[in-house]
Amino acid sequence: MGGTHGNELTGIHLVKQSQKEMLGENYESFSLDYLIANESAIKANQRYIDVDLNRCFKLADLNDSTLTGKESKLAKSINQKFGPKGNSKTDFIIDLHTSTANMQTNIVITRTDLFHLQLASYLKQVLPDVTVTSEAELMEDHHFLESIAPNGVLIEIGPIPQGCIEYACYEKTQSATRACLDFIELFNIDSLPSFTDTLNTQSYYSKIHFPTDDNDDICASVHPSLIGKAYPKLNKGDPIFKRFDGADILYDGEPTILAFINEAAYYDKKIAMCLCNPINFSLISASKNK
Amino acid sequence: MGGTHGNELTGIHLVKQSQKEMLGENYESFSLDYLIANESAIKANQRYIDVDLNRCFKLADLNDSTLTGKESKLAKSINQKFGPKGNSKTDFIIDLHTSTANMQTNIVITRTDLFHLQLASYLKQVLPDVTVTSEAELMEDHHFLESIAPNGVLIEIGPIPQGCIEYACYEKTQSATRACLDFIELFNIDSLPSFTDTLNTQSYYSKIHFPTDDNDDICASVHPSLIGKAYPKLNKGDPIFKRFDGADILYDGEPTILAFINEAAYYDKKIAMCLCNPINFSLISASKNK
Repeated sequence: MGGTHGNELTGIHLVKQSQKEMLGENYESFSLDYLIANESAIKANQRYIDVDLNRCFKLADLNDSTLTGKESKLAKSINQKFGPKGNSKTDFIIDLHTSTANMQTNIVITRTDLFHLQLASYLKQVLPDVTVTSEAELMEDHHFLESIAPNGVLIEIGPIPQGCIEYACYEKTQSATRACLDFIELFNIDSLPSFTDTLNTQSYYSKIHFPTDDNDDICASVHPSLIGKAYPKLNKGDPIFKRFDGADILYDGEPTILAFINEAAYYDKKIAMCLCNPINFSLISASKNK
Repeated sequence: MGGTHGNELTGIHLVKQSQKEMLGENYESFSLDYLIANESAIKANQRYIDVDLNRCFKLADLNDSTLTGKESKLAKSINQKFGPKGNSKTDFIIDLHTSTANMQTNIVITRTDLFHLQLASYLKQVLPDVTVTSEAELMEDHHFLESIAPNGVLIEIGPIPQGCIEYACYEKTQSATRACLDFIELFNIDSLPSFTDTLNTQSYYSKIHFPTDDNDDICASVHPSLIGKAYPKLNKGDPIFKRFDGADILYDGEPTILAFINEAAYYDKKIAMCLCNPINFSLISASKNK
């Protein structure tokens, strides 16, 4: 699926090109379907029209008849066609995203059973710059589109501006998508390679907002020393913001790892960056069906 | 003026900060006013709501009562407040823009009389990476906001994604703005430095569209060898696009110079890049009042 966010063009064009090339023909153990998720948002070149589509797939929201915004209705229709969540006709969803932040090849998983840990480990083995982000801890009933199938992954490549295509980003997204499909084929025909015992992931636990002035306007930028950095460590005393009057603002918290640094999509909520903790998952003790 | 395009955040914050710091107090020979031009577009985080505000300032359009779109009305109101064009109460307008393309510090002038050629020469002298783009040749009655005053300049810094602030871009915009104001002060007190005899500029003469497929969808990206390049030369046989199936497309035209490579704002018209010619202007023979 591409175009879940209407101004992230890479996934849209990859889905269309994959469909043209009949990518599914390369695989014997499953059939492949395609979706351009939010056509209205794509036409408007906006992330979304009313609300973020990729926050609309909680079971409670899908069943809430009072939610009638553009994306809420769209979510219900996608859930009917590819789900329904809890009893899905689709086994696996790959949802393609981009970021203006340097997220490299960010593989977001919302389940940590053995299958998904092996998938993430496989992607780390075969792709050059993978970071695995676990959102499994964040919520029981997830709000992502990919959560309507029992299995899935969100692939997010950056940095790339919104509303732009760059071949390097397109190619990384294509490689990650094909690697996911390769993994599923290998899983289906019982031919998975061996994996390391542990999967290192990053787990979001908080975020930092931009400093604001008396008018609630943003009054500082992310510090230039952090721009373009992929998952840098931040320690107490490190510069974190540069105010528009030129003064540095220093970080005053516990040591952390940063992600989504200066992500354009988060300016509406004045979020400047997210904070991560490394979490290691054992493939030895992972459950086969979480 | 900032926020003429609602998703180019740098100018907006620079105008607000300059106002806070009372930037005008540093100058004795003129007074400084400030405008955040398109508040509705800023709120929507869009370049514009109905039409591009920076294409609304032709005299004919300002006087056309049938034009009633959001930006057409806004243009008329800005023209009343800061113009009116042809009999303006404002002597000089600086309009602040950004680009997703690597435009470095792009100084766009729409007049080539001695004053503007000296201004552009001054900016080249005092700033590190200035390219001067002349749009004077393109149209008699210009459609830019800055054209409602008899003198003006558009400052455009890139690359930066839409909807983002980066301090490096902010600082370049600030330096260019202050250099313009410094020039005006020096002009007013008759203390301009000496200039070289010739000003080298780039002049747009054409553009190249993205290749499209049978559905009129873009089917290729700008070639990776051109991404991030500032005003590169392109010769016949050089790769210009990379199709989503991986094939290179080669340039088949006359030698040229490229600008606005992969500018996100031009995707709506499927424009992939603009073509420039170097044009040299003589400061010796320039008219004092063009």
